Amino acid sequence: MFIGAQLSLYPMTSDFVPVILSGLDALAPYRDRLRIETDDISTLMVGAPEPLFDAMRDFFARAAGDPAHVTLHATVSRGCPGEPDDPSCRCNVLAVAQGRPLAERQRQAQEAVRQAPVMGVGIDVQFSLYVLGQDRHMDEIYGCIDFLKASGTFLRSKNFCTRLRGDAGAVFEAVRQAFLRFGPAEGHVTLDLTASANSPSPR
Amino acid sequence: MFIGAQLSLYPMTSDFVPVILSGLDALAPYRDRLRIETDDISTLMVGAPEPLFDAMRDFFARAAGDPAHVTLHATVSRGCPGEPDDPSCRCNVLAVAQGRPLAERQRQAQEAVRQAPVMGVGIDVQFSLYVLGQDRHMDEIYGCIDFLKASGTFLRSKNFCTRLRGDAGAVFEAVRQAFLRFGPAEGHVTLDLTASANSPSPR
Repeated sequence: MFIGAQLSLYPMTSDFVPVILSGLDALAPYRDRLRIETDDISTLMVGAPEPLFDAMRDFFARAAGDPAHVTLHATVSRGCPGEPDDPSCRCNVLAVAQGRPLAERQRQAQEAVRQAPVMGVGIDVQFSLYVLGQDRHMDEIYGCIDFLKASGTFLRSKNFCTRLRGDAGAVFEAVRQAFLRFGPAEGHVTLDLTASANSPSPR
Repeated sequence: MFIGAQLSLYPMTSDFVPVILSGLDALAPYRDRLRIETDDISTLMVGAPEPLFDAMRDFFARAAGDPAHVTLHATVSRGCPGEPDDPSCRCNVLAVAQGRPLAERQRQAQEAVRQAPVMGVGIDVQFSLYVLGQDRHMDEIYGCIDFLKASGTFLRSKNFCTRLRGDAGAVFEAVRQAFLRFGPAEGHVTLDLTASANSPSPR
């Protein structure tokens, strides 16, 4: 299994470089558990979903502490057949979810969101979950949307994606649960995620 | 068939609102052929791939004419089983591609890139193509990557995505061809795309 993400942080301020660098500083506690490489478009993070989504959350929450409008985009992937197996990506939640009925996975996902830490940073997210390489991919996607609606972070459905709103702790936990508990445990699953904070647009 | 995109433009300047509004002005010529709706996170565009990718290209090229570093993110989708059929999304290229051998589709895609207009705006792109709802999805993805490598816009492969570089005309045409000629014509295919211009990072 190979799990990771390409992350880009976009601070809407002329002084955007220090905001990006401060976000990258928030990744320091994760560098022993994640492979992290930054280029001119994005930062690659490879590793297990526990540190991966915690790091994503802290990266964005740190930048959102700045008064400027800031957004994050993440392309997240697990199980891509084109990537090599990597022992650092081993994930117990995927093994536990394997073969369990949808209703049980939805219940476990909701419990995880309830236990998420409170970060004190309100954020908006919209994301799409893609389950690849199987015929009945929409069953898992609809099952995931039902979980999100009951998660306490659901805002509304949009074309091609789902809007969440809430504390960064609960919202990133809801996204992690969507990524881990839906679609086959050994399958190829991806996320296309946008997070936004401090937008001047009326909410 | 339902085809469309959620687009977000991120100008890295404190004066970001005029840059976004100027990008939206570039969509004016397309408003009779595309349904366009903007909220606080993204702009929805629904319609056939001909105006859709031209509009996306002009939206970004207009904003990239500003000296500020600017990025675009697009979530593009066709054939999602959860969306209603929409006659405005009818696409002749999809009908022609249906059932044709991979090598022929690659040749047609390359020809389309060769005929793309020159916009005079150099851009970087990285994107992922997702073919959903079928078992052998990687065959189409590898076939698409082979097309990109021969398209004149290929920069390099990255984990989870492919980097392109070149004039906005050729690069957005390469992305449109990837979206239309690979994966089944009636299938569910999506793109996760990031475009960047005027970055201060060394190239």
